[in-house]
Amino acid sequence: MKRADNIRPLHARTEALLRRLVRRDAEAAIRKVLATTRPEDIAAAMEHLTWAEQRRLYRVIEDQGYAADVLGFLSDQSAVEVTRSMTEDQVVDLVNRMEPDDATDLVGLLPDALRDRVLEGLEGESAVHDLLRWPDDSAGGRMSPMVFRMPDTATCGQAIATLQQQHSELATSHYVYIVDHQQGLVGVTSLRSLLTSPPGTPLVRIMTREIITVAPTQDQEEVARFVARYDLLAIPVVDEARRILGVVTVDDVVDVIRSEAAEDMLLMAGVSEASDHGGILQHGWRRAGWLLATIAGGVFASEIIVSYESTLEEAAVLAGFIPVIMGIGGNVGIQSATVAVRGLTSGAIQIQGALPFVWREARIGVVLGLFFALMLGLYGYVRYTASDEAFIGPAVACSSLLAIAFASVIGSSLPIVFRRLNVDPAIATGPFVTTLVDILGIAIYFNVARWLIHS
Amino acid sequence: MKRADNIRPLHARTEALLRRLVRRDAEAAIRKVLATTRPEDIAAAMEHLTWAEQRRLYRVIEDQGYAADVLGFLSDQSAVEVTRSMTEDQVVDLVNRMEPDDATDLVGLLPDALRDRVLEGLEGESAVHDLLRWPDDSAGGRMSPMVFRMPDTATCGQAIATLQQQHSELATSHYVYIVDHQQGLVGVTSLRSLLTSPPGTPLVRIMTREIITVAPTQDQEEVARFVARYDLLAIPVVDEARRILGVVTVDDVVDVIRSEAAEDMLLMAGVSEASDHGGILQHGWRRAGWLLATIAGGVFASEIIVSYESTLEEAAVLAGFIPVIMGIGGNVGIQSATVAVRGLTSGAIQIQGALPFVWREARIGVVLGLFFALMLGLYGYVRYTASDEAFIGPAVACSSLLAIAFASVIGSSLPIVFRRLNVDPAIATGPFVTTLVDILGIAIYFNVARWLIHS
Repeated sequence: MKRADNIRPLHARTEALLRRLVRRDAEAAIRKVLATTRPEDIAAAMEHLTWAEQRRLYRVIEDQGYAADVLGFLSDQSAVEVTRSMTEDQVVDLVNRMEPDDATDLVGLLPDALRDRVLEGLEGESAVHDLLRWPDDSAGGRMSPMVFRMPDTATCGQAIATLQQQHSELATSHYVYIVDHQQGLVGVTSLRSLLTSPPGTPLVRIMTREIITVAPTQDQEEVARFVARYDLLAIPVVDEARRILGVVTVDDVVDVIRSEAAEDMLLMAGVSEASDHGGILQHGWRRAGWLLATIAGGVFASEIIVSYESTLEEAAVLAGFIPVIMGIGGNVGIQSATVAVRGLTSGAIQIQGALPFVWREARIGVVLGLFFALMLGLYGYVRYTASDEAFIGPAVACSSLLAIAFASVIGSSLPIVFRRLNVDPAIATGPFVTTLVDILGIAIYFNVARWLIHS
Repeated sequence: MKRADNIRPLHARTEALLRRLVRRDAEAAIRKVLATTRPEDIAAAMEHLTWAEQRRLYRVIEDQGYAADVLGFLSDQSAVEVTRSMTEDQVVDLVNRMEPDDATDLVGLLPDALRDRVLEGLEGESAVHDLLRWPDDSAGGRMSPMVFRMPDTATCGQAIATLQQQHSELATSHYVYIVDHQQGLVGVTSLRSLLTSPPGTPLVRIMTREIITVAPTQDQEEVARFVARYDLLAIPVVDEARRILGVVTVDDVVDVIRSEAAEDMLLMAGVSEASDHGGILQHGWRRAGWLLATIAGGVFASEIIVSYESTLEEAAVLAGFIPVIMGIGGNVGIQSATVAVRGLTSGAIQIQGALPFVWREARIGVVLGLFFALMLGLYGYVRYTASDEAFIGPAVACSSLLAIAFASVIGSSLPIVFRRLNVDPAIATGPFVTTLVDILGIAIYFNVARWLIHS
C-alpha cells in the first residue's frame, strides 16, 4: 500500500488546475487543458468536482467523440448527472458514438421516459438493444458485442484481410474466434499466431479447441475469477448453442475486481453505497441503516443488563468488564467472518462442505478464548481481592472463554448462511456479527456472574 | 457477489477427486487427471491440500515443464513447502524452466543458503539476477524482462520477422516497443497495427509517442491504478535514461489487485496474514496481536468505569447503556475509517488537502449523532421515569451525540495520519479505531452522567 510520490503530482496538478479553471469559468484555458489530456484523466478529475461543475466542464468539450469517451470513463453517478441537462438528441448522439458496452451501461442508468426515447433514437442495428437484456452485473451486461469471428474454412491471410477491412470495429479484439457453419464456437487463436503463421495456413490448424467460455447470465465475479486464473485477455460469452454473443475483456474485469473489492469493504463497515457526492444528510442516510441495527442491539443489551440490576447493585464493579467482554467477542467474530467472506470470494470455501472450516474456526476460538480468559481472569483476580469481589476473576475468565468461542462459530458460519440465502456475505461481517455477539457475550457474562455470586 | 452455480461443479469435482486420489496415493489415477487438467487448475486444487499432500501430488508430476508451470501458479507459501523436499538441482532445473518473473518470486522466497546456491546454478544470462534487485511489491519486482524491442529504423515487416524468429521468448508480448540507438524508449505500437499495416511501413510511422511508463521502484498498487485507468495490456518499466527494463502485464496486475484487496480486508479485521494452512495454534497466534490491543483497551475502559463506582452504585441502570454507546461509536468510527481507506486507495483523497474530507465526515457525524441521540434519549426518557433515574435520558442523548461526532473525526483522520507515517492505513480501520473510540465514548458517558446526577 505504500506509494512512490514521484508520478502523482502530474495528475494531482492537472486536477487541481482543472478545478480552479472550472470555478473561474475560464473556457479558453479549459479547452487548452482538454486538448492535451486523455479522456480517462478528464473523467478522473471530474469525479472531484461538484455536479454543477462537472456539467459546466463537460459543456466546454467541443469534440463529440472526445465527449463520448469521457462519458464512458465517468462513474455511473457522474454520467447520469452530466446527461441530466442535455437534450434527448444530444444524449442519442453521444450514445451512438460510445462503445456498445459503455453505451448500454449509460442507457440503463437513464430515467425510464428518457431511456425509451433514446432507445428509439439509436441507430437501427445498435447492439445496445441486445445488451440491455442482461443484468448489469452479469457476463451479458459486461460484454462487448464486437467479436472477431471467422468461419472454420478460412485461412490466416483471410483473417488478416478481415481485420484490415474492419479495423475500427475490431479495434479491441485480442483473439480470433473460429465458428462453424451454424455459428457455433469451435476454436480460438491469438492475433500473434496470425502474425507468425504463413498466410495460407487454415485457421483450424493453429486454433486451440479448449476454450473457456461463460454464459451470459453468469455473475461478473465468476467471470473475473476465470480471467484471473487463466490469465486471459478476453473471455467469450456463449449461448446454449455455443454461439458467441460477445466478449468480456480484461480491462472490464479489472474494473469489476476493483469495484467489487471496494463494495465488499464498504459493506463490511456497514456503508450501503460508495459515493463521494451528495449532501451531508444523504451521506448520513446511507450509513444510518446498519447503525439502526446497532442501536436496536444496544437497547436489547441494555434491557438484559438492567434485568440484572440487583446483581449489579451487589457488585457495581461488574459493569467494568462489559466493554472488554463485548470488544473481544466482537473482534473475534469479525475476524472469523472476514476469513469466511474471503474464502467464499476466492472459492476456497465451498457452501457444501463448509463444516470443516467452521470446526477449524471453533477450535481457533477455543485456543484464543483460553489464552485471553487466562489473561483477563488473572487481571480480575489480582485487581479485585476483597472477599465480596473475589468472584470477578473467575466470572470474567469463564465468560470471556465462552463469548470468544461462540463468536468464532457465529462469525464463521453466518457468511456461509448468507451466501446460501443468496445475500451478499460481506454484510455479515459488519455491524451484524458484532451486534449479535455483543448481546450473547453480555447474556453469558451476567449469567455466569450471578451464578458465581450465589454459589 | 451472487454466483451462478452451473460451472462450479466442474472444478469442485476435479478438486474433490484429486484430494481423494492423493489421500489414497493412487499415482496412476492422479497421472490421468494431470494429463487432462491445466496447471492453473492443479495449482488451485493443491491449495486445498495439506503440505504433505501437496508434496506427494507434486512428486507425481513427470513432465518438468508442467511442474514448473504449476509451481508458477502456486501461492508463495505452497511453493516454498513444495520445494522444501527437493534437491538443489531439482529446484535449479524448475527455476530455469519458469517465467523469469515467477522464478524471481520463488527464488526470493527460498531460505538464504538454498537461494545462494540456486542463483549460482542458474543459466548464465538468467534474468532472475536482475529482477531480484527490486522489492517484491514494486514495478521492478513484478515485471517480466521479456520485452519485444525494435529499433526506430525498422519496418513492420522486420518486426513481424523478429516475432516469428523469437516466437517462444515473445509469447507474452502485446506491444512492440520502439527504441532509439541508445536503447531509449521512443514509441509503442500494438501487434494489431503490425497486422494491418503494409510490411514496408516504418514503425515510427504507426507508433504512439505518448507512452505511460513506470519506474522500477514504483509501488505495485500505483502500477495497477495506471493499467486500470488507461485500459492497458502491459506497462513498460523504464530507468532514468528511459531504457526499458521490463514490462508489467495485465494478468500480473489482476493478481496484484486481488491480493491487495484481500490483504486490506483481512487487515481491516485485524488478521495479520492470509493463509489457510498451519495448525490451530499458528492461526490463533496470527489473530492474537490486535486482540491484545482490544484487551488492553478493555482493561483501560474497565478502570475508567470502576473509577465511577460511586456513581454506578447510585444508579446501577447506568451500566445498561455502556454497550450501545460503545457499539454506535465504534461502528460510526469504522464507517468513517473505511471510507477514508477506500479514498486513499483509489486516490480520491490526497494526503495534502485531506481536511475537507475530515470536515465533511465530522458534519456527517454530527447529523448521525443528532439523529441517534434523539432516539436513544427518547428511549431513556420514556423507559426510566423514576425521579432518581430521570437523568438517564439526557445523559444518554448528550453522550451519544459527543461519542458519534468524535468517532467520525477520529475514524476519518487516523487512516490519513497512518498513510503519512507510511503505515498501511487499512490497519486503522480495525480494532484500533474501535478500541480508541470505545474508551473515549465511555469516558464521555460517565462524565456526562455524573455531572447530570450532581446538578
